[in-house]
Amino acid sequence: MKLAKSLQNIKPSYIREILSAANSQGIISLAGGLPDQASFPLSLMQDSLSNLTNHPSLFQYGSTAGYAPLLEYFKQHYQLPSSHEGLVCTGSQQGLDLIARAFINPNDKIVMEAPSYLGAIQVFGLAQAKIESVSQQADGPNLQELEACFAQGGITLFYAVPDFHNPTGVCWSLAVRQKVAQLCQQYDVTLIEDVPYRELRFSGEEIPLVSNFCPDHSLVLRSFSKIATPGIRLGLVTGRADWITPLNTVKQAADLHSSIPMQAVLLDLLQHKEFPDHLERLRKLYRERCQTLIDNITHQLPSYCRINKVEGGMFLWLLLPDCNIDALAKAALTSGVAVVPSSVFYQETNCTTSALRLNFTNANEEELAEAVQRLAKVIKEHC
Amino acid sequence: MKLAKSLQNIKPSYIREILSAANSQGIISLAGGLPDQASFPLSLMQDSLSNLTNHPSLFQYGSTAGYAPLLEYFKQHYQLPSSHEGLVCTGSQQGLDLIARAFINPNDKIVMEAPSYLGAIQVFGLAQAKIESVSQQADGPNLQELEACFAQGGITLFYAVPDFHNPTGVCWSLAVRQKVAQLCQQYDVTLIEDVPYRELRFSGEEIPLVSNFCPDHSLVLRSFSKIATPGIRLGLVTGRADWITPLNTVKQAADLHSSIPMQAVLLDLLQHKEFPDHLERLRKLYRERCQTLIDNITHQLPSYCRINKVEGGMFLWLLLPDCNIDALAKAALTSGVAVVPSSVFYQETNCTTSALRLNFTNANEEELAEAVQRLAKVIKEHC
Repeated sequence: MKLAKSLQNIKPSYIREILSAANSQGIISLAGGLPDQASFPLSLMQDSLSNLTNHPSLFQYGSTAGYAPLLEYFKQHYQLPSSHEGLVCTGSQQGLDLIARAFINPNDKIVMEAPSYLGAIQVFGLAQAKIESVSQQADGPNLQELEACFAQGGITLFYAVPDFHNPTGVCWSLAVRQKVAQLCQQYDVTLIEDVPYRELRFSGEEIPLVSNFCPDHSLVLRSFSKIATPGIRLGLVTGRADWITPLNTVKQAADLHSSIPMQAVLLDLLQHKEFPDHLERLRKLYRERCQTLIDNITHQLPSYCRINKVEGGMFLWLLLPDCNIDALAKAALTSGVAVVPSSVFYQETNCTTSALRLNFTNANEEELAEAVQRLAKVIKEHC
Repeated sequence: MKLAKSLQNIKPSYIREILSAANSQGIISLAGGLPDQASFPLSLMQDSLSNLTNHPSLFQYGSTAGYAPLLEYFKQHYQLPSSHEGLVCTGSQQGLDLIARAFINPNDKIVMEAPSYLGAIQVFGLAQAKIESVSQQADGPNLQELEACFAQGGITLFYAVPDFHNPTGVCWSLAVRQKVAQLCQQYDVTLIEDVPYRELRFSGEEIPLVSNFCPDHSLVLRSFSKIATPGIRLGLVTGRADWITPLNTVKQAADLHSSIPMQAVLLDLLQHKEFPDHLERLRKLYRERCQTLIDNITHQLPSYCRINKVEGGMFLWLLLPDCNIDALAKAALTSGVAVVPSSVFYQETNCTTSALRLNFTNANEEELAEAVQRLAKVIKEHC
């Protein structure tokens, strides 16, 4: 069989490829977006898992929208307006894919920040969307570029990660959030607000969702991979009921529904009285690891290496002088440290920034120090 | 946002709609395709579930293709040729959706039996395929029609459920299997062989997969919803490695991977020493229920009601004289029995058969008897 046209320009994820290499013995990986496995709240999930078989109905076919008590919890917890609904997905990745399938025709124009989350670039590539890029600044997207983009018309949606962006770690300021919401309303563009790292803020103050300022012009994607565990594959889309309904229709065809036993375990976990302590410990651990990575970068890398300030999430964005960033990342792997080059996070040909995405949640402090030491040697040779 | 064109002709599944109604108090449902909940092998899954937390890596991000030990088990168990691979999916429904996304362009021609599985009609509708129908006979598809269809050229794939077909219960004869395989090879058409009910044979002798006779012209979809439990949402696609690779690429974008803890539990279950006994008990139960339904139909329904002989699966196909089958199904629901009218299983406008799909796996013997009694009254009024 010939590949469908939609697939002919899609390459397998470089990150998932590098992750296999990164598993080789002796390699320290700052490449993936893996949460710390030793911190998974498994002890808080033990009773739920052991008790699942007391509830045979959890193992029967379920509703496409999700396990009803979990959906009810989400409605309360996220204080959804009565006109909004939720849909439980097989990871927030599926939520994004359902949105693209329900609302994007080939050649429709959509807007993303540059750089942007690779998984989103893949989804929109499969949907054959025309991606317009808006450059990112320290406090969010460049608003002049964004408005110019919206003003040309015909934009279906704007996909963004406003909290501790992947790959840059940028968190949008309150002023930027309000302005983006206003622009979405003014130009009738739907914001797809992807917030997988929102609960991982370890300094600074919480800022409202962008969607708070334009609830009927947005869909929110939430992930439970970072605060619960990734392996259970659960995410959530919320928004206007008339936009959730078509997502439900696509999901019926896509997989009928997501694992119900996993949804029941997630509900118990989120309601567990020790869950807030787990989150607190996780934020503390990631703050410390982030600081370790920053300290090592400051002391071991040449002063021309710069990093964005981050207040949460899982990534530092290490800006380098102009260089062949792919060759540098490859050399780093040979030297025993896996990192992701900036080129991966841009649409083809428009990467003008030499940078590396460094994950700080999955390696311990000794590994982080050793990784930077290995990196230092490679950077000095390449820049 | 406007709906994508691909979605504008898709209606939500009538069956999933009727299933909600069928849950109302006092309704006996023969409408769904639900396995018997009381027979779920939960006791065989208990230890696995309780021990999951001893293996934190099961809760981390995993490989898109699936949990490696499970894939290894499948390769052995299904004796895959070395040039073939497997891909674990979120239910076999997802496998079908991935195939459609990887290989079908809008307006591509594909072939299905008529009637056919509703979930497949939905998937191919979303893919905007042109569906050509081949009528079904007691031993499989009409081979003259099928060859005429293939011979016109430009057919991408032929989707079929050769074992205990949904909705008709038909099982293809060996001769038909061999001929279909030969036609697929001759006309270079890929067979999508969907076998969710294959292990539910309760009489007659096992017949090889059609794919056995054309392994490099087919992809096989397997479901663990009927022999394990549906709620865990696990299925499998197998076939040539060069066809599995693009499915893997689409799955990366679609949901990264399926739940790993559920895959680990499924592996333990499939390898459990008591699993063969569970299957044996399940087949016995379904054979008895099927016989109960047949006996009640024979004794209580008018002689113009006919049923196909079935040797397994979950459904009987009750053929009625020409009538308004949708009105009849609606009246049945009002009279306290939920059934699915034949119109649902055909492409629009080409349903020429008045029939009802009756599920016999989810109601007990008393309920089956009572359901037929209620149905008798409605049929006599409508036919």
